[in-house]
Amino acid sequence: MSCILRNALIPTGTGYETTDVRIEGERIAAIDKGLPATGADSLELEAGNQILLPGFVNAHTHSSELWQRGIIPPYPLELWLAQLHEYAPPDPEKIYLSALATAVETLLSGGTTVVDHLILIPGQELATLEAAVRAYREVGIRAFIGPLLQDQALSTCLPGGSSFAGGAAAYPLSTSEVLALVEEAVEKYHRPEEGITLMVAPTGIQLCSDKLFEGCAELSQKYDLPRHAHLLETRAQQRLAQEKYGCSAVEHLERLGYLDRRTSLAHCVWLTDADIEILARTGSTVVHNPLSNLRLGSGIAPILKYRRAGVNVAFGCDGSASNDSQDLLEAIKIGTILHNITDPDYRHWISPRESVEMASRGGAIGLGLGEKLGSLEVGKQADLVLYDLTQLSLLPRTDPIGLLVLGRPTQVVHSVWVRGKRVVANGEVTTVDVAQLRQELFEHSHWDPFRRSQQAAQLEARYRQVMGLPE
Amino acid sequence: MSCILRNALIPTGTGYETTDVRIEGERIAAIDKGLPATGADSLELEAGNQILLPGFVNAHTHSSELWQRGIIPPYPLELWLAQLHEYAPPDPEKIYLSALATAVETLLSGGTTVVDHLILIPGQELATLEAAVRAYREVGIRAFIGPLLQDQALSTCLPGGSSFAGGAAAYPLSTSEVLALVEEAVEKYHRPEEGITLMVAPTGIQLCSDKLFEGCAELSQKYDLPRHAHLLETRAQQRLAQEKYGCSAVEHLERLGYLDRRTSLAHCVWLTDADIEILARTGSTVVHNPLSNLRLGSGIAPILKYRRAGVNVAFGCDGSASNDSQDLLEAIKIGTILHNITDPDYRHWISPRESVEMASRGGAIGLGLGEKLGSLEVGKQADLVLYDLTQLSLLPRTDPIGLLVLGRPTQVVHSVWVRGKRVVANGEVTTVDVAQLRQELFEHSHWDPFRRSQQAAQLEARYRQVMGLPE
Repeated sequence: MSCILRNALIPTGTGYETTDVRIEGERIAAIDKGLPATGADSLELEAGNQILLPGFVNAHTHSSELWQRGIIPPYPLELWLAQLHEYAPPDPEKIYLSALATAVETLLSGGTTVVDHLILIPGQELATLEAAVRAYREVGIRAFIGPLLQDQALSTCLPGGSSFAGGAAAYPLSTSEVLALVEEAVEKYHRPEEGITLMVAPTGIQLCSDKLFEGCAELSQKYDLPRHAHLLETRAQQRLAQEKYGCSAVEHLERLGYLDRRTSLAHCVWLTDADIEILARTGSTVVHNPLSNLRLGSGIAPILKYRRAGVNVAFGCDGSASNDSQDLLEAIKIGTILHNITDPDYRHWISPRESVEMASRGGAIGLGLGEKLGSLEVGKQADLVLYDLTQLSLLPRTDPIGLLVLGRPTQVVHSVWVRGKRVVANGEVTTVDVAQLRQELFEHSHWDPFRRSQQAAQLEARYRQVMGLPE
Repeated sequence: MSCILRNALIPTGTGYETTDVRIEGERIAAIDKGLPATGADSLELEAGNQILLPGFVNAHTHSSELWQRGIIPPYPLELWLAQLHEYAPPDPEKIYLSALATAVETLLSGGTTVVDHLILIPGQELATLEAAVRAYREVGIRAFIGPLLQDQALSTCLPGGSSFAGGAAAYPLSTSEVLALVEEAVEKYHRPEEGITLMVAPTGIQLCSDKLFEGCAELSQKYDLPRHAHLLETRAQQRLAQEKYGCSAVEHLERLGYLDRRTSLAHCVWLTDADIEILARTGSTVVHNPLSNLRLGSGIAPILKYRRAGVNVAFGCDGSASNDSQDLLEAIKIGTILHNITDPDYRHWISPRESVEMASRGGAIGLGLGEKLGSLEVGKQADLVLYDLTQLSLLPRTDPIGLLVLGRPTQVVHSVWVRGKRVVANGEVTTVDVAQLRQELFEHSHWDPFRRSQQAAQLEARYRQVMGLPE
């Protein structure tokens, strides 16, 4: 079945034009004014006063953190993490629900792809993956799932030889067990041609051995998997890398062979100019998560520097316990304007059009799909979003992309196609019952304000000492 | 007529409680569990799974900038302003429409009061005010209208003796003519008991003489008007103040007698510790506009310092040409988490509950209404917002205020009361026809991307030289 959009606005090099777009199978088949109808099985959709853009990539999140959104108090990453670890892991049913909700929020804010750095339930690792895969297949979003891997205990994640109270035990799985798990997951769930791609995704240098990074790089080669990891989110991690390796984390990851054109790295807040040069040389992608970086006080990633150095940049929401939303348009807006305060020369500032490019094509490149995805071109995958330009938040009419990126669009996503299939129509997700999802999220949760974290409290004195804060 | 809300969640000192709230006339008449019904003319509203909060104050905006939202490219304030001035002023009908839209967006994001630093149409100053007043009365939002005053030409607003191309002419009105205009406006439109309050509101030190500030302070005394102004939004303004006064702008405004407990000052990005001390001593309020400060590259206002010094802080959206939205919850979220990167000690970071307090009571205090408005207390003005906690963006259930402030709530405002009158019900504004408003905004505008500003281009060389940027 094919679909023709009539009279959609699309961006051109110098402005916009009104045109028709035909989707056939998974691909964009034609873009031209006055396309001929293609028979009885073709859906014709009037798209006047709507703008069509390539779908955005939510290039870093942790779906199951949804269960802790809104609840962790203002803490830096290390204390935030101590509290997060205190919550009982969700069961596979809750994994399924939070993946559904993450996908729905992503779709309704312009995203057609989600990168889920998925926290695994200890002892139920494959069941965790199974639940998330089921959710993403049902919703019909394009999903990249990176099981969040570690082979070292939490006790190693602060500089200065600190240990988390209660976290000093060794990590229960060995490096080879962790790698075997990834391989099994790949065999079971890796179906890129169906929109489900597995990634190798070590947590980051703070919780992973060299062997784990090397093993992941090998699996990436063997199965052609994208690579993902956190990188230098906090100043504490920058110090930890120096202690652990005697060099920067980026230098070390390059030596381990982890960095290449399929590698996307979340955060990248604390990189030196030499580190940036390495990212550019290896073709690695930075995933910018501006909102969690603010929320956790991690800092402002030097995105303008990355762009000037030729490093590809994409946007992510990050997990809902540290953002606490999966609204991709919000991450794009803040990830655009935030950097204007880091460089007095406005000629370096990011324009709304550049942001759209970063969010779509930048995201695709970071997943190794720059040739297939992320732009409005004939032959590309039909991952498309149609925005209703008559909604109040996009009025009055001025510059559609300026309104979309710099405004606060609400209820503006009219239709979404992923791999040619329409999954949002008239602002409603068509593949899953969102009212039912809300009901289930409600029933599986309870009001829980003012929780005091024991682990954060226990780590606090040590954290303050290491970071030079008064007692 | 009275109204009883049944089983609403309200915040308490240590958590939340479920209770009933009775509104009578303009006021909160009772807050207690199991309130008795009050007769046939009383509306009973079941508010289970909803949280009731005091309405927020959109403490600084310029409603008519709505006509330029999304359109001005990434520029610092001074070049942005050059482009803004190039657009033909809207006629009174457009003033009316943009005030309506500003009010609607404010209401639907938790605001019950708007402070409109209203740009006047030259030669139609009273007609401008008339149109805005009409809009705010129709919507039923509480409005503080500060006619944006100046008595100096744009040519004075850059340091280093710069002049705007085409802006070198003297300002057409004398100081006394400007002050006479304010006095006439006060007589015609100042009706605080009906929810319409006029303010004295010089633009700021960059465009106003000492006589204008002094005259405004006198009118404020005479008619009991709140005072408003921009203050030190950019580094250029900080330098201009030194050139113009030989001291900081804050010291100068204190000497002129402009600072007191009714004075709210938008931006306050470039203040010294001594300046902060003056704001604390005079009881002045800082209006934090985090989004326009990022968008224009103005910087991060030192809000944590203000709070520690005891300076009252409120939140504003700023005008839609520099934000470009009137979503108050967005301004509150970013105005909360942004400061976590300015102080490594998380104990100084703003909690979601503190943000709610700043947005409601902080806003009221800045308008001289701290005794009457901004908190859930019997006898206070019933400016109230009821949020639906079953919307997807506020699920799963954790901490309601955490979700509201740190999430990205969409479609969560269920009901709004202003001065005891319900103006939003079931998520829809009841007082004006929003579909009709959208239609009119659409018809009064046209797509206008990639406009190149002549004035900005002409000012650019001078701006770059003054600010030390390469040619």
